[in-house]
Amino acid sequence: MTAPHPFDQAIALQPLGEDRFAGATSPAYANMVGPFGGITAATALNAVLQHPALLGEPVTLTVNFAAALTDGPFELVARPARTNRSTQHWVVEMAQAGETVLTATAITAARRETWSVDELTAPDLPMPEVVGSHNMAVPVTWVRRYDLRVTEGHLPTAWDGGGDASQTTLWMRDEPARALDVCSLAAMADVFYPRVWLRRATHVPAGTVSMTVYFHAGAAQLAAVGAGWLKGQARAQAFRNGFFDQTAQVWSEAGQLLATTHQLVYYKQ
Amino acid sequence: MTAPHPFDQAIALQPLGEDRFAGATSPAYANMVGPFGGITAATALNAVLQHPALLGEPVTLTVNFAAALTDGPFELVARPARTNRSTQHWVVEMAQAGETVLTATAITAARRETWSVDELTAPDLPMPEVVGSHNMAVPVTWVRRYDLRVTEGHLPTAWDGGGDASQTTLWMRDEPARALDVCSLAAMADVFYPRVWLRRATHVPAGTVSMTVYFHAGAAQLAAVGAGWLKGQARAQAFRNGFFDQTAQVWSEAGQLLATTHQLVYYKQ
Repeated sequence: MTAPHPFDQAIALQPLGEDRFAGATSPAYANMVGPFGGITAATALNAVLQHPALLGEPVTLTVNFAAALTDGPFELVARPARTNRSTQHWVVEMAQAGETVLTATAITAARRETWSVDELTAPDLPMPEVVGSHNMAVPVTWVRRYDLRVTEGHLPTAWDGGGDASQTTLWMRDEPARALDVCSLAAMADVFYPRVWLRRATHVPAGTVSMTVYFHAGAAQLAAVGAGWLKGQARAQAFRNGFFDQTAQVWSEAGQLLATTHQLVYYKQ
Repeated sequence: MTAPHPFDQAIALQPLGEDRFAGATSPAYANMVGPFGGITAATALNAVLQHPALLGEPVTLTVNFAAALTDGPFELVARPARTNRSTQHWVVEMAQAGETVLTATAITAARRETWSVDELTAPDLPMPEVVGSHNMAVPVTWVRRYDLRVTEGHLPTAWDGGGDASQTTLWMRDEPARALDVCSLAAMADVFYPRVWLRRATHVPAGTVSMTVYFHAGAAQLAAVGAGWLKGQARAQAFRNGFFDQTAQVWSEAGQLLATTHQLVYYKQ
């Protein structure tokens, strides 16, 4: 028996009955303080997926980070607030020591094949082999759980206040390789480091307070991507009085838009 | 005593104690079925604003439309799930006849003045006087509560399947005029008609299932805008198997980015 992938270990939950699940933070996905927000988002989504009443597949996820998680156990409550014929609405809350540390909502739906088109085309990027190797030099543990090959908008090497744009494009995949699913896609929506560092070339404290992911790909489309490379692109729209937003897209290597995502990020000074 | 503005009537709530509020749909903001999603979003946000424990001002709002509202009374529960030193996390639920019709989360925060910049600049639009008069010809009541002057991406007049882009730019303000606040800004984030109609030039059934608004402007900045014109821009990113997303921005006439917003919309066929 081979050991499970670190990602599967990190998002694993034990059902406690009555909408409740138990989990624990994983040192493999440690951030500066507490775990990587993406892994926490994926874990919240996993509670929905593990729920016995689940209908369909996720189409939206919004997570709000209410407090830095403490390393150790947590409890999740995932409640189907409304079940319709083809959609289901979820309210999720994560707690540590009786205090709420995350609130979330999600919608799952039974997808049907319809007219479809991608309006936003994927950027042309030099191939991952040409870029070379992992090059996102953020000194935190979770970054080593990904192979991230930035092609534009590198983390500044000189913190000289000289930034003038906030766009990053990159290739990404799990490290070691892992077949894509909706939970790993949710986590990868959060790999873009805070745009304020790039736009200002200034290393201010920053942390995501809310993230929304729209899943355009269903399970079959994600399975077709397998462990292949994904293209990502992120940029900010506005920085104002302690908060900025970043909007991002994730495409398959073949250019199919798999997810679009937005987050609001706190920053200091 | 002058009558209150229809918007204030529509979002009015009666406190019932213990996080609970009572309200009712307003015929002035009727949509095809039930009320305009924007007015429902604004009403959910108003429950947070009316709560005696409120800390700070809204920075995010996510509303999930779980079912079409029935014309008539509803009840809202707005619960502060976590209160930190300078941020507060809210979980909101709206019910009619004991059934959940909306779930929402919001974050409020005490804003402090920091380095700020708008990354996304406002589009150049011909002035409202040049555009002429209200020209969003959607035959539902709520549209008449706004002065909407579309400058690009009009509602198709020929439903001939010939669409090839999804961007709309427009001027907007309340009709009659009303000083901007965070609730009316939340509502105006939803004035863009479904992008699928424009992209396909096909009039398929469509309805918002989830909307997130990031408020970049605080109360003082909104007060400075007063009853002035706002610029809006919206476009889709992907249409896939029954759901598409639209991403939009709202600027003041002076070009300050007041809010960025995203929604996932259900469509048929």
